[in-house]
Amino acid sequence: MSKHIDIISIGDELLIGQVINSNATWMGQKLSSLGMKINRMEAVADTRDAITNALENAARNARVVLVTGGLGPTKDDLTKEVVCDFFDSNLVLDENVRRHVEIFFEKRGFDLTKLNFWQAMVPDNCQVIPNAVGTAPGMHFEKDNVHYLFMPGVPMEMKHIMESWALPFFKELCQPEAFVQKTVLTHGMGESFLADKIEGWESELPEKFSLAYLPSPGRVRLRISARGDDEQDLQRELDNQIEKLHAEIGLLIYGYDDDTLEELVGKLLLKNNLSLSTAESCTGGMIAQKITSIAGSSQYFKGSVVAYSNEIKEQILSVRFEDLEKYGAVSEVVVLQMAENMRNMYSTDYALAVSGIAGPGGGTPEKPVGTVWISIAGPQGSKAQKFLFGGERVRNIDWAYQTALNMLRLELL
Amino acid sequence: MSKHIDIISIGDELLIGQVINSNATWMGQKLSSLGMKINRMEAVADTRDAITNALENAARNARVVLVTGGLGPTKDDLTKEVVCDFFDSNLVLDENVRRHVEIFFEKRGFDLTKLNFWQAMVPDNCQVIPNAVGTAPGMHFEKDNVHYLFMPGVPMEMKHIMESWALPFFKELCQPEAFVQKTVLTHGMGESFLADKIEGWESELPEKFSLAYLPSPGRVRLRISARGDDEQDLQRELDNQIEKLHAEIGLLIYGYDDDTLEELVGKLLLKNNLSLSTAESCTGGMIAQKITSIAGSSQYFKGSVVAYSNEIKEQILSVRFEDLEKYGAVSEVVVLQMAENMRNMYSTDYALAVSGIAGPGGGTPEKPVGTVWISIAGPQGSKAQKFLFGGERVRNIDWAYQTALNMLRLELL
Repeated sequence: MSKHIDIISIGDELLIGQVINSNATWMGQKLSSLGMKINRMEAVADTRDAITNALENAARNARVVLVTGGLGPTKDDLTKEVVCDFFDSNLVLDENVRRHVEIFFEKRGFDLTKLNFWQAMVPDNCQVIPNAVGTAPGMHFEKDNVHYLFMPGVPMEMKHIMESWALPFFKELCQPEAFVQKTVLTHGMGESFLADKIEGWESELPEKFSLAYLPSPGRVRLRISARGDDEQDLQRELDNQIEKLHAEIGLLIYGYDDDTLEELVGKLLLKNNLSLSTAESCTGGMIAQKITSIAGSSQYFKGSVVAYSNEIKEQILSVRFEDLEKYGAVSEVVVLQMAENMRNMYSTDYALAVSGIAGPGGGTPEKPVGTVWISIAGPQGSKAQKFLFGGERVRNIDWAYQTALNMLRLELL
Repeated sequence: MSKHIDIISIGDELLIGQVINSNATWMGQKLSSLGMKINRMEAVADTRDAITNALENAARNARVVLVTGGLGPTKDDLTKEVVCDFFDSNLVLDENVRRHVEIFFEKRGFDLTKLNFWQAMVPDNCQVIPNAVGTAPGMHFEKDNVHYLFMPGVPMEMKHIMESWALPFFKELCQPEAFVQKTVLTHGMGESFLADKIEGWESELPEKFSLAYLPSPGRVRLRISARGDDEQDLQRELDNQIEKLHAEIGLLIYGYDDDTLEELVGKLLLKNNLSLSTAESCTGGMIAQKITSIAGSSQYFKGSVVAYSNEIKEQILSVRFEDLEKYGAVSEVVVLQMAENMRNMYSTDYALAVSGIAGPGGGTPEKPVGTVWISIAGPQGSKAQKFLFGGERVRNIDWAYQTALNMLRLELL
């Protein structure tokens, strides 16, 4: 019996390329991190034939079939009808789901519509899987020894059902080979240079290990995984390999797995009871936005001044007019004043300042697009560093935010 | 005979979620914009069985099968072997490809390896499609009236082969029906309520039209498309339908297709020579960041104050201490002062202010998580409005930013 998993995503929007299939990618990550093997991912149209076909194909080879999309309350969602034909079911009103939908809407002060009641109609031969974050429940069937789980296509709802029910259930069911993995997050060296630097380490990795490079602006993630018989042994070997890697490139490593720089910086500030503010020009508030995306950030983050014009740099951040004239806004002198004055104005222990040319306009031969100055002011004084990033606007802004937070992280260590 | 297209992407990296399948999305966009129908997209593993299975499935229903991946020179790329079995071919050296590969490497100053010669070995019964931007050529087969095209998985190479050969060839072959489409972007009403509101319009849509709902926080996109004989007629009918829809829900529509609120607001400000600043609490700088993601935004955006603590609201934004004490930071009184004082401080025509409880902490029975006040101060005075959004932090922040920009857009019209 195959232990493989098929993932089916329903929706015309995927086929016409309007929406990228990030649901399947997320499921692939989660399932494979538990050692489960995905056989295929398929995206199909919102039509009876296409959905039925996909289910029939899956039934031939898979042990588990995960389906998303087509469970909403509107007309174009006909998955539920097709499901009833495929599993020979009748739709019945599920009182628990009805009550959940009612409360869900009541809480938000909305009136129930006829369409919302449709969510509470479920096939009579499925196991209903609760959806705490939305109105359409998951539906679990077993037929001829194949398990099927239907979930809404809304990413938050799919993820909720996967994490609260499906991942543990199917792990137990499939009993996959032991599998361990860890992603090492590095900042400050490009992919090919990093590959050169760790060539020796990589060539000595045992057969059962695999390594993948995942580059993005300013960062390279290294995913190291291994399969084998015993999870504890594998974990020990993995830890051992990562220790060796750390000995080679420790300074470049800022975290592991899902760590983010904003989270790591937040933890360091919190632990040392320190506060932070930011003065942003070319990053336009992105550093503040990333820091405040972390729950509880109000305990260490006081706020930001986004100074997108020289006028505001002068009037609000008290940067000296003569220096703006003489050195320009993208200069060591100005970015240092931005950080120092920000620190005083918001009375924080640290202030981070960024001034640069994100592009596409504004570049000169001396200061081309991608030139960015970053400064930190703190209890021990202030410092500034110049960078020359890629070229494209959004990429430059992203790169500057990552680099600024990593500078602060290193400063706080 | 079906005119449908199947897209098959080969690669383990897709199945484990390491790489998102952007190739398939791009092909979907291009093909459907020419009126061609995609039947399904499938991602499969780099194994003999998986690839053969996918080809057999496709052969049953499709007229055209587009395959990417697995044509590189390294060990794990076995597509070419599988292809030879499937089409009963022998590999032969193609002199044109060999010369191309040689020149390709010479130009880049690389030495040819044995592996590179493998690129020049092609099945003897295929049409070789030149790849000017890489070394692995495309391979076109016809078998039992189904066309197959194999392309490299490198996005640039796939796009080159699609644009230079495949799109014109398959358009000629499939003679697709004329096709038009437009996506209507709405803000301010949930999916099921919107569906209720436009039920009459939807039910009178002619048969040839199709409608899809694409919801996300604060927004619902409505994709309307039509197929028929004559493109000009269809376009006229589509425009006509959209006019009718506009008459029903004009106030909810903020744009079309790829429009973003930050872009639309930027255009309105620029056109009227107006300037903007933002005072942000719970959005933490996101509004500023979105506005400054648009190139040229420095012409109308002066900056932002992110005031993440009451202290900063009082000291920097000059919100009255008594009001913060009496009404709390998330209140009409406070958000109005934030906007008005911001407008004065940065000397802008408009100022947008947001104060809310993003969660997960900080909620109370009177002001639950998701409560957000948004205010606009402008030349005609100021106004504020209260909202109660979903529940989850990142979603609430996203929702607040969309809503604030849409309020400003409506104000500027």
